[in-house]
Amino acid sequence: MDIKAELKKRADFFDKELEKFLKGGEPETLYDAVRHLPLAGGKRLRPVIAMISCEAVKGDVINVLPLAIGLELIHNFTLVHDDIIAGDLLFAKSFEAMHKITGDLSIFKNVEYGLIDCVRLISEGQQLDIGFENCKIVSENDYLEMILKKTAVLFMYASEAGGILGGGSSEQNRALNEYGKSLGLAFQIHDDYLDMSSDEKTLGKDIGNDIRNGKKTLIAVHSLNNAKGEDKKALEKIFGNRNATDEEVKEVYRLFNKTKSVEYAKITAVDYCKKAKKVLDVLPDTEAKKILLGLADYSIQRKK
Amino acid sequence: MDIKAELKKRADFFDKELEKFLKGGEPETLYDAVRHLPLAGGKRLRPVIAMISCEAVKGDVINVLPLAIGLELIHNFTLVHDDIIAGDLLFAKSFEAMHKITGDLSIFKNVEYGLIDCVRLISEGQQLDIGFENCKIVSENDYLEMILKKTAVLFMYASEAGGILGGGSSEQNRALNEYGKSLGLAFQIHDDYLDMSSDEKTLGKDIGNDIRNGKKTLIAVHSLNNAKGEDKKALEKIFGNRNATDEEVKEVYRLFNKTKSVEYAKITAVDYCKKAKKVLDVLPDTEAKKILLGLADYSIQRKK
Repeated sequence: MDIKAELKKRADFFDKELEKFLKGGEPETLYDAVRHLPLAGGKRLRPVIAMISCEAVKGDVINVLPLAIGLELIHNFTLVHDDIIAGDLLFAKSFEAMHKITGDLSIFKNVEYGLIDCVRLISEGQQLDIGFENCKIVSENDYLEMILKKTAVLFMYASEAGGILGGGSSEQNRALNEYGKSLGLAFQIHDDYLDMSSDEKTLGKDIGNDIRNGKKTLIAVHSLNNAKGEDKKALEKIFGNRNATDEEVKEVYRLFNKTKSVEYAKITAVDYCKKAKKVLDVLPDTEAKKILLGLADYSIQRKK
Repeated sequence: MDIKAELKKRADFFDKELEKFLKGGEPETLYDAVRHLPLAGGKRLRPVIAMISCEAVKGDVINVLPLAIGLELIHNFTLVHDDIIAGDLLFAKSFEAMHKITGDLSIFKNVEYGLIDCVRLISEGQQLDIGFENCKIVSENDYLEMILKKTAVLFMYASEAGGILGGGSSEQNRALNEYGKSLGLAFQIHDDYLDMSSDEKTLGKDIGNDIRNGKKTLIAVHSLNNAKGEDKKALEKIFGNRNATDEEVKEVYRLFNKTKSVEYAKITAVDYCKKAKKVLDVLPDTEAKKILLGLADYSIQRKK
């Protein structure tokens, strides 16, 4: 028997499945980076071992493919993350914790999958955030999609999955999902607002850095989309210019206020807070409901 | 109602659970690093939201604690891993794949948990490997524990979980686990051997680096533990000395051969290969079994 040929046959079969599994995804830069190492080839030893072990007990290899892919990706993950071992362990510990969920296994499976999906969405959001720094103009919708992924999904998931494990009805869990979404958006927009309004007179180093890096906060997005004439030109010239002087940074800050963008961010956060509270109507009146309502208020009132 | 106090009450309760969950673990350096960020405190917003959402549908908060811990750790993970987003996504995609396992949910859960446990063990093994570079002497048992964790566990898991998903009996799956373990150990020891024997005359840069960094391969471990008198003194002086000259590196290499350590590594790999093959006796005679046997041979015959 030509062992190498047998191994290769399975590795080749596996490669096609892996390629299928890793196809697509946005943002493309991120997914290209994710595909790069696993699709660069290799012996596929771990997946092939799993496949052959399955065959060895007369099982159908189709049943083992998800595991085979999981294995090869985890293997690649440990290669990429060689230098930040603690982070890997955090990830493992997180799922170790999830596995202590008791009760109905299909609920466990769904809830755990939700967390996995959050990691994917957060990665996408973080990549969008970085990508935006090199964009001249970003629409408000693009901005909202980015913070939805980067920040709000984990809030959405926290409240919805909390409801699910608490035995809530579909309607209640859907409301909790909506609550978490609006709360997360309000939370992130208020963060943008706090960063920009923290110290109006002596513009902090962080604000200067954000302006020089072209950081697309809601304030920046709104101002870039609403400034007119000379103001627009000045904004486009200075915002995102890493060599901007302190005076220029102050000028951008003045324009942010002239377009009422700081105020706009405040109003938008308040709107999401109201939305978050409204959807809770379907919940029974409990102490917990009151706390959720209070938390929504707190998310846009906090000073840090 | 004092919202902040209500949030804090739950955050404090959660903190105790998180501390319990993160207690202990070896190597301590690694677990200290893992604890550092999550236990530095914070608002615990995500877990608290999950807890209150559970309460809001009149559920028992005990049921939501695993999720709460999972959430807070994932949140911290995304903070630590800010700059290597693609790695995070790889992790998520790995578990996305695992979730496609069909059939009995309790099998899914056990198999998935096995992969999570692998990440934990690999992290520990990688940290041990790094830690060993600063140890004067490492016992052969310590070395074996390190490569078991760093390399062999994913092989063990690959074969055992492959068997489980293939519907193997407990005895068969246990044999596959043993197979993967011996295969993984043979594989890693053969790697150590290949690195050290690849180019005997013109010692490669990698070998020089490994010797200067005090890299604890089985060859180095064996030689350090078996050299006598002047040889032992010379080894201890040069091995792990970042400023060792090329001549000194060659002297270490000569001593590795004098203690028959290169040969010892080869013999040890062969022994593990034999062990791997022996345990497969309980499997039915199939093509797959032949491939597993052939793979064991291949793992100690390959030239790269």
